[in-house]
Amino acid sequence: MKKKSDLENILAGVADGSVDIKDALHLLRRSGVEDVGFARIDHGRRERCGFPEVIFAESKQPTQISVIAKRIVASGEPLLITRLDEAKYKYLKTKLPKLQYNEQARAAYLTRKAPKRQAGLLIVTAGTSDIPVAEEAAVTCETLGYAPERLYDVGVAGIHRLLAQSDKLGQAKVIIVVAGMEGALPSVVGGLVEVPVIAVPTSVGYGTSFVGIAPLLSMLNSCSSGVTVVNIDNGFGAAMAAMRMMRLLEKKA
Amino acid sequence: MKKKSDLENILAGVADGSVDIKDALHLLRRSGVEDVGFARIDHGRRERCGFPEVIFAESKQPTQISVIAKRIVASGEPLLITRLDEAKYKYLKTKLPKLQYNEQARAAYLTRKAPKRQAGLLIVTAGTSDIPVAEEAAVTCETLGYAPERLYDVGVAGIHRLLAQSDKLGQAKVIIVVAGMEGALPSVVGGLVEVPVIAVPTSVGYGTSFVGIAPLLSMLNSCSSGVTVVNIDNGFGAAMAAMRMMRLLEKKA
Amino acid sequence: MKKKSDLENILAGVADGSVDIKDALHLLRRSGVEDVGFARIDHGRRERCGFPEVIFAESKQPTQISVIAKRIVASGEPLLITRLDEAKYKYLKTKLPKLQYNEQARAAYLTRKAPKRQAGLLIVTAGTSDIPVAEEAAVTCETLGYAPERLYDVGVAGIHRLLAQSDKLGQAKVIIVVAGMEGALPSVVGGLVEVPVIAVPTSVGYGTSFVGIAPLLSMLNSCSSGVTVVNIDNGFGAAMAAMRMMRLLEKKA
Amino acid sequence: MKKKSDLENILAGVADGSVDIKDALHLLRRSGVEDVGFARIDHGRRERCGFPEVIFAESKQPTQISVIAKRIVASGEPLLITRLDEAKYKYLKTKLPKLQYNEQARAAYLTRKAPKRQAGLLIVTAGTSDIPVAEEAAVTCETLGYAPERLYDVGVAGIHRLLAQSDKLGQAKVIIVVAGMEGALPSVVGGLVEVPVIAVPTSVGYGTSFVGIAPLLSMLNSCSSGVTVVNIDNGFGAAMAAMRMMRLLEKKA
Amino acid sequence: MKKKSDLENILAGVADGSVDIKDALHLLRRSGVEDVGFARIDHGRRERCGFPEVIFAESKQPTQISVIAKRIVASGEPLLITRLDEAKYKYLKTKLPKLQYNEQARAAYLTRKAPKRQAGLLIVTAGTSDIPVAEEAAVTCETLGYAPERLYDVGVAGIHRLLAQSDKLGQAKVIIVVAGMEGALPSVVGGLVEVPVIAVPTSVGYGTSFVGIAPLLSMLNSCSSGVTVVNIDNGFGAAMAAMRMMRLLEKKA
Amino acid sequence: MKKKSDLENILAGVADGSVDIKDALHLLRRSGVEDVGFARIDHGRRERCGFPEVIFAESKQPTQISVIAKRIVASGEPLLITRLDEAKYKYLKTKLPKLQYNEQARAAYLTRKAPKRQAGLLIVTAGTSDIPVAEEAAVTCETLGYAPERLYDVGVAGIHRLLAQSDKLGQAKVIIVVAGMEGALPSVVGGLVEVPVIAVPTSVGYGTSFVGIAPLLSMLNSCSSGVTVVNIDNGFGAAMAAMRMMRLLEKKA
Amino acid sequence: MKKKSDLENILAGVADGSVDIKDALHLLRRSGVEDVGFARIDHGRRERCGFPEVIFAESKQPTQISVIAKRIVASGEPLLITRLDEAKYKYLKTKLPKLQYNEQARAAYLTRKAPKRQAGLLIVTAGTSDIPVAEEAAVTCETLGYAPERLYDVGVAGIHRLLAQSDKLGQAKVIIVVAGMEGALPSVVGGLVEVPVIAVPTSVGYGTSFVGIAPLLSMLNSCSSGVTVVNIDNGFGAAMAAMRMMRLLEKKA
Amino acid sequence: MKKKSDLENILAGVADGSVDIKDALHLLRRSGVEDVGFARIDHGRRERCGFPEVIFAESKQPTQISVIAKRIVASGEPLLITRLDEAKYKYLKTKLPKLQYNEQARAAYLTRKAPKRQAGLLIVTAGTSDIPVAEEAAVTCETLGYAPERLYDVGVAGIHRLLAQSDKLGQAKVIIVVAGMEGALPSVVGGLVEVPVIAVPTSVGYGTSFVGIAPLLSMLNSCSSGVTVVNIDNGFGAAMAAMRMMRLLEKKA
Repeated sequence: MKKKSDLENILAGVADGSVDIKDALHLLRRSGVEDVGFARIDHGRRERCGFPEVIFAESKQPTQISVIAKRIVASGEPLLITRLDEAKYKYLKTKLPKLQYNEQARAAYLTRKAPKRQAGLLIVTAGTSDIPVAEEAAVTCETLGYAPERLYDVGVAGIHRLLAQSDKLGQAKVIIVVAGMEGALPSVVGGLVEVPVIAVPTSVGYGTSFVGIAPLLSMLNSCSSGVTVVNIDNGFGAAMAAMRMMRLLEKKA
Repeated sequence: MKKKSDLENILAGVADGSVDIKDALHLLRRSGVEDVGFARIDHGRRERCGFPEVIFAESKQPTQISVIAKRIVASGEPLLITRLDEAKYKYLKTKLPKLQYNEQARAAYLTRKAPKRQAGLLIVTAGTSDIPVAEEAAVTCETLGYAPERLYDVGVAGIHRLLAQSDKLGQAKVIIVVAGMEGALPSVVGGLVEVPVIAVPTSVGYGTSFVGIAPLLSMLNSCSSGVTVVNIDNGFGAAMAAMRMMRLLEKKA
Repeated sequence: MKKKSDLENILAGVADGSVDIKDALHLLRRSGVEDVGFARIDHGRRERCGFPEVIFAESKQPTQISVIAKRIVASGEPLLITRLDEAKYKYLKTKLPKLQYNEQARAAYLTRKAPKRQAGLLIVTAGTSDIPVAEEAAVTCETLGYAPERLYDVGVAGIHRLLAQSDKLGQAKVIIVVAGMEGALPSVVGGLVEVPVIAVPTSVGYGTSFVGIAPLLSMLNSCSSGVTVVNIDNGFGAAMAAMRMMRLLEKKA
Repeated sequence: MKKKSDLENILAGVADGSVDIKDALHLLRRSGVEDVGFARIDHGRRERCGFPEVIFAESKQPTQISVIAKRIVASGEPLLITRLDEAKYKYLKTKLPKLQYNEQARAAYLTRKAPKRQAGLLIVTAGTSDIPVAEEAAVTCETLGYAPERLYDVGVAGIHRLLAQSDKLGQAKVIIVVAGMEGALPSVVGGLVEVPVIAVPTSVGYGTSFVGIAPLLSMLNSCSSGVTVVNIDNGFGAAMAAMRMMRLLEKKA
Repeated sequence: MKKKSDLENILAGVADGSVDIKDALHLLRRSGVEDVGFARIDHGRRERCGFPEVIFAESKQPTQISVIAKRIVASGEPLLITRLDEAKYKYLKTKLPKLQYNEQARAAYLTRKAPKRQAGLLIVTAGTSDIPVAEEAAVTCETLGYAPERLYDVGVAGIHRLLAQSDKLGQAKVIIVVAGMEGALPSVVGGLVEVPVIAVPTSVGYGTSFVGIAPLLSMLNSCSSGVTVVNIDNGFGAAMAAMRMMRLLEKKA
Repeated sequence: MKKKSDLENILAGVADGSVDIKDALHLLRRSGVEDVGFARIDHGRRERCGFPEVIFAESKQPTQISVIAKRIVASGEPLLITRLDEAKYKYLKTKLPKLQYNEQARAAYLTRKAPKRQAGLLIVTAGTSDIPVAEEAAVTCETLGYAPERLYDVGVAGIHRLLAQSDKLGQAKVIIVVAGMEGALPSVVGGLVEVPVIAVPTSVGYGTSFVGIAPLLSMLNSCSSGVTVVNIDNGFGAAMAAMRMMRLLEKKA
Repeated sequence: MKKKSDLENILAGVADGSVDIKDALHLLRRSGVEDVGFARIDHGRRERCGFPEVIFAESKQPTQISVIAKRIVASGEPLLITRLDEAKYKYLKTKLPKLQYNEQARAAYLTRKAPKRQAGLLIVTAGTSDIPVAEEAAVTCETLGYAPERLYDVGVAGIHRLLAQSDKLGQAKVIIVVAGMEGALPSVVGGLVEVPVIAVPTSVGYGTSFVGIAPLLSMLNSCSSGVTVVNIDNGFGAAMAAMRMMRLLEKKA
Repeated sequence: MKKKSDLENILAGVADGSVDIKDALHLLRRSGVEDVGFARIDHGRRERCGFPEVIFAESKQPTQISVIAKRIVASGEPLLITRLDEAKYKYLKTKLPKLQYNEQARAAYLTRKAPKRQAGLLIVTAGTSDIPVAEEAAVTCETLGYAPERLYDVGVAGIHRLLAQSDKLGQAKVIIVVAGMEGALPSVVGGLVEVPVIAVPTSVGYGTSFVGIAPLLSMLNSCSSGVTVVNIDNGFGAAMAAMRMMRLLEKKA
């Protein structure tokens, strides 16, 4: 069998008996790469990782984003573009007129009617200033079929604001906690619930917050066991992690 | 009133007049905490967080560990003591003769016949030197009823060693990936599977590994979306996070 | 039930049957918090911490600030908005015409006739460039009823400038010392007085000042015992700390 | 002329001719300093700063400590020696037989019958491992006449342990909060009380705690306004700061 | 005496009396350097190091660049100007009309018909965002006569994209691997080939990528032995290193 | 009493009764300081430190600079303003029409006919990009009467460029060496001469130069004994240090 | 074809025509892994990367090292064990009696009669203290058949010591430069030769050398183009890189 | 030809035919270097830099130190060995029986009757703990003929201790200021004198002193112009710098 066989080749092999089913499964995931010169689009990602390729726009040129975006749309997958500033969005809008934009999250998306996914994903922020990162997480979830609940501005300086929402905490299946400054909120939440807690440090703060290092270190050193952490301001990554977990709810043990 | 009374119990007492208001205020917040002078043991932790209190031995005195350990045993919970050096273990063994010790993991434990929990927890290491951290994770899981599978020494310098084990990766429900040096393995694993991947950086290395900062940064910057990270050498925390996730398999969506 | 009801009120309601147990649980922890969607304003803060909620404007949108500001004004508390650039101030001025602005401090405020508070708060700077941070502290104090004295540009390169002001130092009850560059001034002041000294490192300097790390480290390592430190450029926090201390003067021992 | 002569005394001598100008220049600045060759003991410190000189033993030789200690004892002041390891203590004990030692705090002291000072100083720790630092603070206070109350092991992973002690928090005049790992406790305490809160980061933890940097940054970035911070593991300094504040209670406003 | 005179020439002059000793001292060390006031152009560099002087434009003024560029052109060497923004390029274009510009690489060049050099130089990137740094390397090689092959966007999140190109890897003589984020690609490549691998970390990423520190540390800690590293974003330096190696192919062993 | 009265004058006043004791206390320490509200100009600095006060403009407002500048001019001292951007310069030019500006050094000055000072001050740079920092040093020297010699672009990549100038090195009395990137030049110079070498790291470079940290560390770790270092980009400070040394030449041993 | 085919299987496939030669080549390199439980020995490494697996002993247990070492010896490859302290060596010596030890390099080896490899590898150190790292590089080369020349203690504080050895520099094909403190030597060497220069920072120094960070940064910022860098104290890695380059001399262009 | 022949001698040899050109090339650069295998002793250093080679013992083996020491003694220069622990000293004492040892400075020396050098070198410390570093500076000076004055324990917490010694400060020609903790003393001294001030940060302190980084940064950011800095704990380097300056007193302007 040739190296660069694509889906058709593999399936043809299964059809004529030259490839057995187990081998086909492996081949299936090793293919699916589309070469557009400056990029190799990984159409097999959903099959391997459970979600399609997402475009991180920050250091890409508008024309590059446009080319990749069109290929993803053509593949029938939902489109999500993160870290997209407004100027780039306006350019893309001329190419993909149905593209929508969440200004706070700085993310554009184009969704299809997806089947509703599991409920139970909760996104919490310590302060009002952490909302943009939380919204990046929320938009990511929504584009892929989840409907996260939001609980914003319940930081530890007024701990009763959080305690007052223990119902919401108790109903959640997976919780994303977004916090800047001293980043103490995930520790408190982690001590109140038994479900997975994903901590997202934000660059909110000044001086010794060191653009997010202070809350990052807090979260990595959480005295509440089993809290996990993603990169600073990485709302997208937290959402992806949350969805990897949410999917466990659909599996039989 | 009993130790494990919850809020409803206390308020019910107020409503029926058996508890007066001032006492209620104290009870409301004191439930489940045992005060032993230098420590306040949190017996309610399992109810809140799904697992009992675990003793981090590193900066505690042997006598302090002994007191806390006995109270946990008395409460009927499994006992786990992490970061316990051999000298302290020998002292504790005289107090708790049934205590067992995992030398590589530097952890002591005393288990009861626990009902078997979910299968599907996989622990992977990049190198042989990362095994102690992986074993801390493994012992933690085992003490609490899980039976993790181990896949050691499959780092990226010989990527075929990992690819050769794609069956194991494919069967896992939650994967802990332990790696020092450049910490690249979680990115590769995260790109091959759709289940949660918990990355544990280790202090294995020298020079610019900066006692684990290099792999920590790698993992936080993983190009594979949805990988989450715990503190350097924190095998225990990774296990706790994994168990928070494994428990989702038992819930109905 | 009124907003500022405290725990006793709620429990009394339970005891006399006017509040049922489930409702009590919510009320118990929700007292004094006003939910405006993107923020939960903590009106109970003065009662708990002795001062009302203050708005940190840096990463908030003008409309968000406006909403929160109006609620604070409505609650009858003095209004203080810090880290407010001029553009945002101009927008707010259209919503709150009586708002005043201190350009150096980049703070807006709206005060009511407050009873005069304790005298004895002294604010010292090492250089002229540290004045904006000192003014943020001064405006904060003034908004809340204190009348701090200012002593500016008395850094250690000309130590006699400070020694010449030993009268002012001697009369102070609490001293805030603001310094950038090498941040040596709090050590010298701390060695001359017996009252509390709050050190504020500033980002004044270049190169190895590392945007304030150099003076921060100096202050944390002060050889004058009992000097405490706040975040870089945190004039507001220093003022808050100073007022927590000044209030001790009003208490009976 | 006597040792504790102050500026007025010297100038009076000039005015009445008993001190000539050149001598005055020297006296003016030399008052209260005792030169023992390798050290200049600052006997005037109590007069200037409200407390006598304390010996930091860590990088001093036993013989040096012994010489300084004897001079302080001779001056009639209470003696306190911090960061004193057991070997050095044993040597000093042969020189100063009445010397006492607090093993956890690694501090030696020799007190006189001091008049009782203000009550209301509260020392709180997040965990059991933070106790040595808290004890350094406690011993310092006790040597100088204060009787601090202790509240240990009330960290945020079980936030109810702290809330259960709100009575103690409410009665405190000044609170020292000692915490390692993520250092979140001072933020929570600062949000519950109106009195001064002094945060002490400890080097308890591992990996990304970076020997205390993680809690230090948390505390400097506290979202609870007016929390001040001292150096890592600096229980002594926190006590000194607390006493500068406690003394305000004795002053008339 | 001519510009490129070497040591032997000068000493020969001394031996035959045509150069006196004092002059020789100066000549001995001044050969090949042209002094243009603000710069000393090193025309002897090709002879010593195998390649001519290249202009790093970032912190030079346009007029300075212009003067140096003209001297290099006059010397008959190929001209390469790196880190040149578009504004400076436009100015230079008016002085050197034949100058060409690679926008992605931000490099200008002016080549002569150079003899074709060795084939076998391969430039690999992990992502699309790393292309500008890769292009700086490519332009550098091309200006000096090499024709590098490009293999872009084959990062480890989809490891099959790289494995699918093992032919290209196998044919390469020297490989430059450019990667941002976690910088894992050089380790994987280094484990697949036996030829030199030069790793270039890029500043692509955000948060804890720390403008390129994360991939830099990954590369320095590579578990694949014999990978070497250059400065962050240093495509030029990687090309120079690669050419030092490529030249070995032309030498007899 | 006159401004420049020294201690003796004041004490003489006390001795003859013309100054009473309380007043003396103030005068004693206030001599030579002019209070302009936001600044205390230290006119006594030349007497104490050998040079007048210099204005660091970076974080001062134009009006503040103008007020201080006029007072210095009025005192008869030479005026030097460093870190002055062009906009501020233009404003100042309207207030002080004779003010001159060195664009590269970003420094303004206004000199009087000063007596010529010692020759022998040499300023060396590694590259062309380091010239602005070198010029700041040069302008500072020139304003205060020195005439430094310049030797630019003799970095270690072409070590013969430096060796060719050994005459200039040999004639120097004090050498300032300015270098960015790896900052190796001061080590080489320090190994060739016996006079004081002051190393100035610059922020020239990118990536791991970390805005000057790389050359700073090089210089602090110089294997040539007796090289001293100033802050990154601190041409002014290097000049001041050099002049402190040059003045030794005028003293009798 | 089955996944876990080993060498025999592959060759058998080639023999009976079921596998064509090109495919076999790939398969060949993907096999060769021996599973010993705690490690997966990569016997195919020489084929893929040109050198056999080497044992990094630092964080491995003696028994683990022993097991792996025996397998490597059994495979017929030369054995090299780096970072091996003397205690572990003594244990291994009882298991492998012919094992030899280089004390300075802290490396053990067991060589076979290897065919002599290319000459031209030169190892240079800045100081005497850098020799252990240089020796680790030398032993590595020697074990694999190369005979490196050594040139020690030619640092830049006495630059003439290096210049005096320009013959050796001129004859080298690949140069490893080992330097601690300010790490300036690779820049000087890189400016004198046209062959590859591999810079190895060492942890020699104190204070701001930060255990090797100072020379590392110097080397990464070298103003001599095309110098590449390896991890701090990584003599082994530098040797491996050098050998990857030396092998180019054996290839036809 | 003799060892100390300089360039002129060699070239004269070429001119008169006694030295042929090829030999001259070698001699030109090899003058004054003695090759002992593992080290190249730089006997020409005094001629170039004004002081002989000094042995830094920290990472050298006793036998290496012994060989180098004997060659220096043989050359007739004074011998100084720094960073020498007591064990190594005892070994050396058996080889060089007249060797003397300063325990605090950890330095050994062997002096000859040197002509007395300039007076006026003053060494100041902030605390008692800084004395070892100060003594390293003092021993270095004394070995080379200078007689520094010592002024210890005059740190800024009791600023009057320093002011009381203004006579000593006023008489100094060059001042070395040694300080740990916050490192403020050089700024104060620099503001009081006009002579060169060399600041030496020490690793005295704990926590955020970061083994000397805090005082280092303070000193680099000194608000007193013209203070220069050496590496942490580098008493030796400070002495070398001071002597480079002291020598200016002997030169005619």
